[in-house]
Amino acid sequence: MSDAEHASPLTLPTADHADAVELLGLVAYTELASFGRLAGDAAHAPTLRQRQALSRLAAAMLDRQERVLVRVDELGGDPADCMTAFDGLFDDFDARTRPSTWWEGILKGYVGQGVADDFCLLAAQGLDERSRDVVVEALTQDTPSQRYAPVIADAAAADPVLASRLALWGRRLVGEALGVVGVVLAQRPALARLVAAGIDATAEAASNGPAPATQSWVFSRLTAEHSRRMDRLGLAA
Amino acid sequence: MSDAEHASPLTLPTADHADAVELLGLVAYTELASFGRLAGDAAHAPTLRQRQALSRLAAAMLDRQERVLVRVDELGGDPADCMTAFDGLFDDFDARTRPSTWWEGILKGYVGQGVADDFCLLAAQGLDERSRDVVVEALTQDTPSQRYAPVIADAAAADPVLASRLALWGRRLVGEALGVVGVVLAQRPALARLVAAGIDATAEAASNGPAPATQSWVFSRLTAEHSRRMDRLGLAA
Repeated sequence: MSDAEHASPLTLPTADHADAVELLGLVAYTELASFGRLAGDAAHAPTLRQRQALSRLAAAMLDRQERVLVRVDELGGDPADCMTAFDGLFDDFDARTRPSTWWEGILKGYVGQGVADDFCLLAAQGLDERSRDVVVEALTQDTPSQRYAPVIADAAAADPVLASRLALWGRRLVGEALGVVGVVLAQRPALARLVAAGIDATAEAASNGPAPATQSWVFSRLTAEHSRRMDRLGLAA
Repeated sequence: MSDAEHASPLTLPTADHADAVELLGLVAYTELASFGRLAGDAAHAPTLRQRQALSRLAAAMLDRQERVLVRVDELGGDPADCMTAFDGLFDDFDARTRPSTWWEGILKGYVGQGVADDFCLLAAQGLDERSRDVVVEALTQDTPSQRYAPVIADAAAADPVLASRLALWGRRLVGEALGVVGVVLAQRPALARLVAAGIDATAEAASNGPAPATQSWVFSRLTAEHSRRMDRLGLAA
């Protein structure tokens, strides 16, 4: 019997506060990691204007993280400790996907953060309404990905060799990113519970009957989102 | 006849807007550079808590930079272009002072940013009142240096070998930093004018007679501030 089947079919399952704090901790950690990556990309940007723009995006990301940590506090969690469980989560991913050019670094941010954000948004469907709003707002409003998509798309359109290299790099990145998601689902039962609750709510809303197995459902959703994201860049997924 | 002697002894010389925009551009560029350095230090911080704290300090630095750029706009300057003249200003300094440990990186920020901020504060004395207030507020309120001084001081107090290495490193850093200041004074007449105007105002206020030569006065002030800064760390200057 899957976790999802434990949930009542008639109500939105509500994760307890500890589960919510765990997801908020993952969101906060992801934003901290993105901050560091964006700031690093900024330092190596080809022009001063791009350096300024990327630095500002990085700083804005940390402002959004602040609001997530405020919600952790509201739920009785510890804003300083809620990220601890995830410390080092992306180390292996980073070691396996070292960009060899600035563009590869920018695409890495776009793909890696895209997958991470999409995963957190799926899990957020199992949260209480207020926490869900905080996560959705933090991960969807004026994100660096949205700002940088046109920049990557323009560069790829102007340079077919770059486009084909980036398409290949994108496939490598999404494979590694899904690997991290698999690890998180396997090692963090609270997050698997939230995702299952979210699937259940979604299946219920669509009257699709029983919810599918968590991991395969998550991977298919994340892969579909990834394809849409690469489409926006004009790159083959 | 020095620049300072051109100024009326009875009024605070007021730099024109172009000179003010140039100094504000230097302050903004310095804050952008400090943002990148702090974010890089954050990424390599020994603990997640330090990583979070340093990242937040870096983001706050860019918020302060925003207010400096607003003032550039008020003066009719271009916030996007005002930093261009300084692009690459610290490249040589950075190449000559690559930290070999995380502590050396932290002290580099403390010393290098300290000298840069002190120079900008000296030059700011030649600005109009509103611009001067913006610079002073940006460079003196809750700076990373203030926050990190106790951390470095504690580590140095606990480890005499570290303390003696950092003292040596600090002397190397201040020498290289003063070299950058010399380049700026020689190559940016607007900034030399502002400093001279500031010296004149200071000499006038102290009734010390004619102002001394700009560069030697600047170096003696910056060296004195550096000594005080190292004292706060318990390190020999």
